[in-house]
Amino acid sequence: MVLRQGDDVLARLEALMLEKDIPSASIQGMGFAGLVRFGFFDFERSDFQPRDFADMEITGLVGTLAWKKGKPAIHAHATASGRDFQAFGGHLLALTVGRGSFEVTITVHDRRLQRQHDESIGANILLLPDMD
Amino acid sequence: MVLRQGDDVLARLEALMLEKDIPSASIQGMGFAGLVRFGFFDFERSDFQPRDFADMEITGLVGTLAWKKGKPAIHAHATASGRDFQAFGGHLLALTVGRGSFEVTITVHDRRLQRQHDESIGANILLLPDMD
Amino acid sequence: MVLRQGDDVLARLEALMLEKDIPSASIQGMGFAGLVRFGFFDFERSDFQPRDFADMEITGLVGTLAWKKGKPAIHAHATASGRDFQAFGGHLLALTVGRGSFEVTITVHDRRLQRQHDESIGANILLLPDMD
Repeated sequence: MVLRQGDDVLARLEALMLEKDIPSASIQGMGFAGLVRFGFFDFERSDFQPRDFADMEITGLVGTLAWKKGKPAIHAHATASGRDFQAFGGHLLALTVGRGSFEVTITVHDRRLQRQHDESIGANILLLPDMD
Repeated sequence: MVLRQGDDVLARLEALMLEKDIPSASIQGMGFAGLVRFGFFDFERSDFQPRDFADMEITGLVGTLAWKKGKPAIHAHATASGRDFQAFGGHLLALTVGRGSFEVTITVHDRRLQRQHDESIGANILLLPDMD
Repeated sequence: MVLRQGDDVLARLEALMLEKDIPSASIQGMGFAGLVRFGFFDFERSDFQPRDFADMEITGLVGTLAWKKGKPAIHAHATASGRDFQAFGGHLLALTVGRGSFEVTITVHDRRLQRQHDESIGANILLLPDMD
C-alpha cells in the first residue's frame, strides 16, 4: 500500500480492512509524516497522553490489524526522526502523510482476530485462538 | 503471539521454538515493556554493556530465531520510548512485558538455521545454507 | 541474508535483486553498522541532507525493493543507537556492516514493482498496480 501526501494512514488502513475483509494482518511501514501523534498510556487516567510531531521521517512502523465489535481495530507503534535525526516514538494515535509518500507492507493472516477490552489492565488486548 | 504483563518475552519465544520445533523464523513485535535491557557490544571485553529501562513502549522489535548447539538462539534488536517519547535502542538482552500486552508476529521459515560463534569477531553469526 | 563486516548493505541488496531477479520485496533487518548515513529530505534543494554515524547498532531497518528504469531501486529507513543507547534515524543513504554481522529478512512479492519520479513532490514514488 502506497499512500500520498495528506493521506490519513490509520483511516486508509481501516478502509482497506473493510473493503478487502482482511481477517487480520501484521504491518510494517515507513515514509514521510506531515504529522505524527504519539501517545504514552497513562494507566491512572486510562488514556493516552498525546504529543504531536510535524515533518518527521517515520523510520519504522510496526502493527497489527484486527477487529473489535465488528469494526477495524489497528494497533501500531512507530519510531520517527526529524531534521536533526534524533528519534522519538510511541503508540501511534494519528499519522498523516507528508510531502513524499508512505509505504506499508501488509501481511494478511487467515484467521479473524479480535481485540477485547481487558478490565484488569484497562487496555485492549488482541485475542489469539490458542490463548488461555 | 500475544504476551501479557510479567511475561519474559525471550523465554516465551524460546519455549515456543522448542514446543513447535520452529526451524527458523523472523520476528517483529511491539508493546509495553515493564523492563527492557539493552546491550551494546564491547569487543574489547567480548560482552554486552547493559542498561535497563523501565516502563517503555517498545516501538519496534526486529529479530531472528535460530538454533545453536541444539538450543534456541534468539537475536533481536529493539527501539523503545518512554513518557517523554525520546527513543532508545540496542541489542535486546531482556524484555519483560509491562501493564498491557506485547504482540509478536513470527514468520516461520522452512530451513533450520544455526548460529555459530565466530572467533575472528567474537560474536555469534547466523549461518545460511548458501553462505561461503 | 547475513552480511559480514565491511559489506555494503545497499550494494549487496541490489546485487541480490539482479542475481535472483526479485520482482519486488519488503525487507526488515538489524545488526551492527560500522557506518550508517541517514538523510533528511530537503524539498527546497530536492536532495537529502546527510549525516554519518559510526559504530551503531541498527535497531530496526524497514524497506522495500523495487525497480526504476531497469535498475534496482531500494527505499529503506532505519533506526540506530550507539554506546549510550540514544536512538537516531532517518532515510537510509548508506550502511556498511561493522564488526559482527547484519541480518536482513527479505519477503519476496510476485509482482514487479516500479518507482517513478514524481515531479509534483520531487521524490521517487513506488507504483502499485491498483493505484489510481
